Amino acid sequence: MQVWKDYQAQHQNRFLDELLALLRIPSVSADTRHNEDTKTCAAAVKQRLIEAGADKVEVCPTAGHPIVYGEKIIDAALPTVLVYGHYDVQPPDPLDLWHSGPFEPVIKEGNIYARGSADDKGQFYMHVKAFEIMMQTNTLPCNIKFMIEGEEEVGSANLGIFLKENKERLKADVVLISDTSMLSMENPSIDTGLRGLAYMEVEVTGPNRDLHSGVYGGAVANPATILCQMIASLHDANNHITIPGFYDQVAALDATERAALNQAPFDEAAYKKDLGVNELWGEKGYTTIERTGIRPTLEVNGIWGGYTGEGSKTVLPSKAAAKISMRLVPNQDWIQISELFKAHFEKIAPACVQVKVTAHHGGSPYVTPIDHVAFKAASQAIQATFGKAPIPVRGGGSIPIVALFEKELGLKTILMGFGLDSDNLHSPNEKYGLENYYKGIETIPYFHQYFAEMSKK
Amino acid sequence: MQVWKDYQAQHQNRFLDELLALLRIPSVSADTRHNEDTKTCAAAVKQRLIEAGADKVEVCPTAGHPIVYGEKIIDAALPTVLVYGHYDVQPPDPLDLWHSGPFEPVIKEGNIYARGSADDKGQFYMHVKAFEIMMQTNTLPCNIKFMIEGEEEVGSANLGIFLKENKERLKADVVLISDTSMLSMENPSIDTGLRGLAYMEVEVTGPNRDLHSGVYGGAVANPATILCQMIASLHDANNHITIPGFYDQVAALDATERAALNQAPFDEAAYKKDLGVNELWGEKGYTTIERTGIRPTLEVNGIWGGYTGEGSKTVLPSKAAAKISMRLVPNQDWIQISELFKAHFEKIAPACVQVKVTAHHGGSPYVTPIDHVAFKAASQAIQATFGKAPIPVRGGGSIPIVALFEKELGLKTILMGFGLDSDNLHSPNEKYGLENYYKGIETIPYFHQYFAEMSKK
Repeated sequence: MQVWKDYQAQHQNRFLDELLALLRIPSVSADTRHNEDTKTCAAAVKQRLIEAGADKVEVCPTAGHPIVYGEKIIDAALPTVLVYGHYDVQPPDPLDLWHSGPFEPVIKEGNIYARGSADDKGQFYMHVKAFEIMMQTNTLPCNIKFMIEGEEEVGSANLGIFLKENKERLKADVVLISDTSMLSMENPSIDTGLRGLAYMEVEVTGPNRDLHSGVYGGAVANPATILCQMIASLHDANNHITIPGFYDQVAALDATERAALNQAPFDEAAYKKDLGVNELWGEKGYTTIERTGIRPTLEVNGIWGGYTGEGSKTVLPSKAAAKISMRLVPNQDWIQISELFKAHFEKIAPACVQVKVTAHHGGSPYVTPIDHVAFKAASQAIQATFGKAPIPVRGGGSIPIVALFEKELGLKTILMGFGLDSDNLHSPNEKYGLENYYKGIETIPYFHQYFAEMSKK
Repeated sequence: MQVWKDYQAQHQNRFLDELLALLRIPSVSADTRHNEDTKTCAAAVKQRLIEAGADKVEVCPTAGHPIVYGEKIIDAALPTVLVYGHYDVQPPDPLDLWHSGPFEPVIKEGNIYARGSADDKGQFYMHVKAFEIMMQTNTLPCNIKFMIEGEEEVGSANLGIFLKENKERLKADVVLISDTSMLSMENPSIDTGLRGLAYMEVEVTGPNRDLHSGVYGGAVANPATILCQMIASLHDANNHITIPGFYDQVAALDATERAALNQAPFDEAAYKKDLGVNELWGEKGYTTIERTGIRPTLEVNGIWGGYTGEGSKTVLPSKAAAKISMRLVPNQDWIQISELFKAHFEKIAPACVQVKVTAHHGGSPYVTPIDHVAFKAASQAIQATFGKAPIPVRGGGSIPIVALFEKELGLKTILMGFGLDSDNLHSPNEKYGLENYYKGIETIPYFHQYFAEMSKK
């Protein structure tokens, strides 16, 4: 609608400044040293929701970082959209690889560079601004509820409890989330599925103290070596995961579904060039699109042990450890997979070491029904602003809470993300395109309009 | 001699205080942040040599940390002993495992706890004090030269140059070093051989940046996983090292030699209990004594990559790295082994990653001739103070410069160490027994006396 366009054009600079201000708050949920910053960020989100026109805005305490809630109920008879987002961000390290401070946003070549720019501050804030536009132009076509949490990057441990305790307040017809990517601005897409996650930490202990590698080397098991051997054994020669039972629940796609999936444009040469790798890697028998979309994976997210400082130290370390996470696909259950991993890892540990396996967090995979009215509304909204119907794709990432919404609130979720895979999520120099930000703000009101209209029928 | 005993008894407390003062200087050679401390330590060593009665004492600059030299020439016709030691120490980390500050020495249950107490400040300083005793009692039976360096823990990179440039000044009949261990105070021993060392650092690079493990996981090689697979492949099922040609030069011992070696008292139950391990580990077909003495080994001294901080981060790291060192035995050449390692590691790297292999430092193995007059003098000296002839054993550690002395100065080396394997060398809570310290000071003058006498014959 023209009034939307006009209002956005008039206030676009402020929309950007407000986002930059949010990005300056280092709300790193994984690092307790930033607990004050997450509080500050939650308070800022509350303030912005109030300014945008939301009612009953509240910073809701949890056992961890707080959840910000706000709503606008214009007519109980109208459909209600529950907008979810998260104001917490990933840790910024390795810091030395950032071209500019992770929390000092800079605009370069049409992109906003800052931790959280795409994941998820830049994306959830589009909804706050789209809401402002509809409020200020008196065009809000449905009820909106906002739930912006602060623990998405650490597993949303307290969100489930919040959902259980606020079923009435959170009553809605659908959940709308912008926390995913599109194939490109030329090929808009919507994630129709997400992978689940099981995040583990393992610790291998050999001798009860660091030893001199000359005096004891060769006679005592080196936990770093053993850990390497154990991790190496988790994939076979075809890069299949060797954990017994790991694939038992995996929903296999038939040839037609796989063919459809592989319709999505994919330029392998450009993909390799962008990543700076000579060869891709992955499970034998599947394409890259399948490997990142419909197949489960196991990745070492971090490994450490022994002397990692400057120079050399001839030590036989007492301990070595690793963070290992698995991406899951329908119908794998993250708790069962975590247990399978733990049992297997403990089983393959040789008697010369002791292992400790801890489950960090996880979430189940999710698939969006493309015949859902809200999915159709999202498609039409994108069609309206991108001039092209979005391609349905399977996202490789995980937003564990999506499965939670279905379980606790009985709500389906629409993943209308405006980011790009090249946004360096979880990496140094995370970015979010200005065009993506503005286009998102432009698209969201259409979603609400179409969703309200279609829901009537 | 009684005069020695009396003098030592009279000055023993000062001997200890002087050592504690040295131990308070954090002369960590591997860490550039301690460069000032190593300078301070060198100056302190110089001062102590002067006080003990040495002439021409000098702090000799090198491209790295300085070497302290001093000498006492009483008669050019008499034999000359070159005493070698090192004032630099290993990094103290992991700091949190120390019961007391690594550089705040404390005496507990008859032990001096501090980094460098046994390796090597406590041991080289015995020679300074033994020298003082002989000087003060006018009983010095031969010429003595002291060469105390500051780079032993980082590979003595500049010592070779110093030897080359100071052949005249370093002229001697034998090198005497106390930087090794005894089996126990009840079973004194002398190392008749040392293992060589080749210390490497490897870096595996996958994608050009850290990636989101959900978006890219399963499609791009994870350098941490690949590094684990590569390290795992360096040992076979029998824990033999798989690097082609690695064992080609290894001097095999015949049954008699192996039997003699295995005469040394070894209590496996006590050994396991001390280390807190349920099972030992090592190369199939060899005993623990052989594995640590006459067989080469490959150990991961450190490994790191990805997110190692608090909590969880779903990252697919761009790089993973490890420090890997090999202990070598006669007649392996450390440069050749370093090259074999590099070639092999580069060869086994899959095309989906890039590897960088750097050689840190190394040294060749060494065997002491037990028929050498100085070896006999050392045996008798120990017999005189311990009441027992020492058992000849093969030490597992490496003092690369021992081979260097033979090459550059044509001198044999006697390894008359007074430490214990339980001294936590290179580990938290390094210690050195007061009794070991005092007994060493008591023993050393006998070595000089017997060596001077036997050399006459």
